[in-house]
Amino acid sequence: MSTTLRNDLLLRALLREPTPRRPLWLMRQAGRYLPEYRATRARAGSFLALCTQPELACEVTLQPLERYELDAAILFSDILTIPYAMNLGLKFETGEGPVLERPVRSASDIDRLIVPDPTRELRFVIDAVALIRRELGGRVPLIGFAGSPWTVASYMVEGGSSKGFARIKRMMYEAPRELHRLLEVLTRATVLYLNAQIAAGAQAVMLFDTWGGVLTPAQYREFSLRSMQEIIAALTREADGRRVPSIAFTKGAGALLGELAAIGCDALGVDWTTDLKSARGYTGDRVALQGNLDPAALLAPPEALRAETQRVLESYGEGPGHVFNLGHGITPEVDPARVQTLIETVRAFTPR
Amino acid sequence: MSTTLRNDLLLRALLREPTPRRPLWLMRQAGRYLPEYRATRARAGSFLALCTQPELACEVTLQPLERYELDAAILFSDILTIPYAMNLGLKFETGEGPVLERPVRSASDIDRLIVPDPTRELRFVIDAVALIRRELGGRVPLIGFAGSPWTVASYMVEGGSSKGFARIKRMMYEAPRELHRLLEVLTRATVLYLNAQIAAGAQAVMLFDTWGGVLTPAQYREFSLRSMQEIIAALTREADGRRVPSIAFTKGAGALLGELAAIGCDALGVDWTTDLKSARGYTGDRVALQGNLDPAALLAPPEALRAETQRVLESYGEGPGHVFNLGHGITPEVDPARVQTLIETVRAFTPR
Repeated sequence: MSTTLRNDLLLRALLREPTPRRPLWLMRQAGRYLPEYRATRARAGSFLALCTQPELACEVTLQPLERYELDAAILFSDILTIPYAMNLGLKFETGEGPVLERPVRSASDIDRLIVPDPTRELRFVIDAVALIRRELGGRVPLIGFAGSPWTVASYMVEGGSSKGFARIKRMMYEAPRELHRLLEVLTRATVLYLNAQIAAGAQAVMLFDTWGGVLTPAQYREFSLRSMQEIIAALTREADGRRVPSIAFTKGAGALLGELAAIGCDALGVDWTTDLKSARGYTGDRVALQGNLDPAALLAPPEALRAETQRVLESYGEGPGHVFNLGHGITPEVDPARVQTLIETVRAFTPR
Repeated sequence: MSTTLRNDLLLRALLREPTPRRPLWLMRQAGRYLPEYRATRARAGSFLALCTQPELACEVTLQPLERYELDAAILFSDILTIPYAMNLGLKFETGEGPVLERPVRSASDIDRLIVPDPTRELRFVIDAVALIRRELGGRVPLIGFAGSPWTVASYMVEGGSSKGFARIKRMMYEAPRELHRLLEVLTRATVLYLNAQIAAGAQAVMLFDTWGGVLTPAQYREFSLRSMQEIIAALTREADGRRVPSIAFTKGAGALLGELAAIGCDALGVDWTTDLKSARGYTGDRVALQGNLDPAALLAPPEALRAETQRVLESYGEGPGHVFNLGHGITPEVDPARVQTLIETVRAFTPR
């Protein structure tokens, strides 16, 4: 684990330290747009097999790094590994997204939940982290991650993906204490999980709050932000004598980025609906920012993609603290050549 | 048409004139949560029949007013009547939402589009407006509406509902001039359509920009806001010697509400993800605000629903200019008794 990290641009930018150029990685950089990913996925037989077999998770994690000059690897996994380890019957139905066969809807459902021991029920993830870290051999840092308690809870209560979040919102209005109990279980589980990832070799961690943006601001503070703050406060701060930066990402946070910046994390993910310039205004430069190209720009012709990428780079303005990324994950229909165009544009960028 | 309007609270509040209490209506107040709506819908045979037969549209428009003390009627219709009148083959598949059999994807598809004459191809809507206005007999004002060009274009290009808006975004990046041509056709069609609704008796109009929030701020300005501004500028300002207020609603506008407030409309719809207090800050009280209860609060027990409603009322603060509404439409699973609880709470409210 003490291999020297040869490219530490990401870690420095996440801590707002100066870097000679802006580092970049891409959410879902290991994914269905890559033919080599689709081949491994076909061999594995299922998405879940990729997540649960460390060798396969390692293989797909490294695929985009073989192809592109990226400044970070991100653990190939899913935000629903915790409910999977809680034995809720996670399945990925083709074209339907995740399904949980045993959703959590009553007080007794919550009573029955166990906090997974990461070295046992989530061992497959921790082993994958260690293996990836070893295979990376210090090329770039490895990012670990987890879903936010609110986001993971929404899948657990809804039983899968949702449009209106009717069930979990009903629970929020009808039985807020029960929902808080569920969030507390998930908060404890997530702290153990992320700290185990750090112990196994993750050099930065990210919390994905995909669904915090469906709440009113008051509900967001109470049911999503608070759990994220508790997690951030309990994270291992250093590994190998180096700070482990934390990134929080609420999709659709908008002007609430200012409050998110105050929970103690080092950086915020920003989606494409907020300009980085506005985001710096909201956060008062207290944190680094990661983002925020519209993932659909990767469907554009090269010239338009370059222009939109340039716009994102310039919108951040001067000074350190920008990690280039998309505002959400790469979609399957993207041409891998476009990702190359994007990366070249970011690497060539020199602020005016 | 010159029947005296006995309850003009809505029109006054939309113009920021003082009212003895805050008026309220509810997006999708005529809808599937009402058993009488479901009965008419079953009799009609399809959702489209309800929209295209003036007597049926009138019947369902008036249903919530028979049941509840609401301060406005809103035309029962759909934001896709314009593509329907353009002969794009609109169908509503059960559980799938709208489908357009002949989507608009190429320059020649756009060339072929006709701007519907509201007195001919959209006659069924205009007749419904006149009929509803007559049947209302001055009880409350009638609100007409249309979709924003960006929102309607998204259905036309995608061929129906969409998650990622990949096709229209690809067009935006690849062929922005073509998309602008499409938006211009829709802008002209929408001006004619809304002015015909006003001529037939609509006393206020609302533009629904359901999907403006999926754009970057720069794209939102160029591809959604601009068309809405052009429409607002071309609307008939007065009817029966009275101002016809206009309401613009971009779901997910967030901090961009400030720019939306500057397009010349009288009021803005606000979804539940922005506090009304923040919205007043963004808009500098230049416009009235309409909103913004989380529609899921109607699934809550009465006490929680009252508390959440009270919170919305109080968040607006003092002074005129608040029209109470939901932040989006009522969902089908709502118990009609909850709507009664909501209405009583709003009507009983007296600002501290």
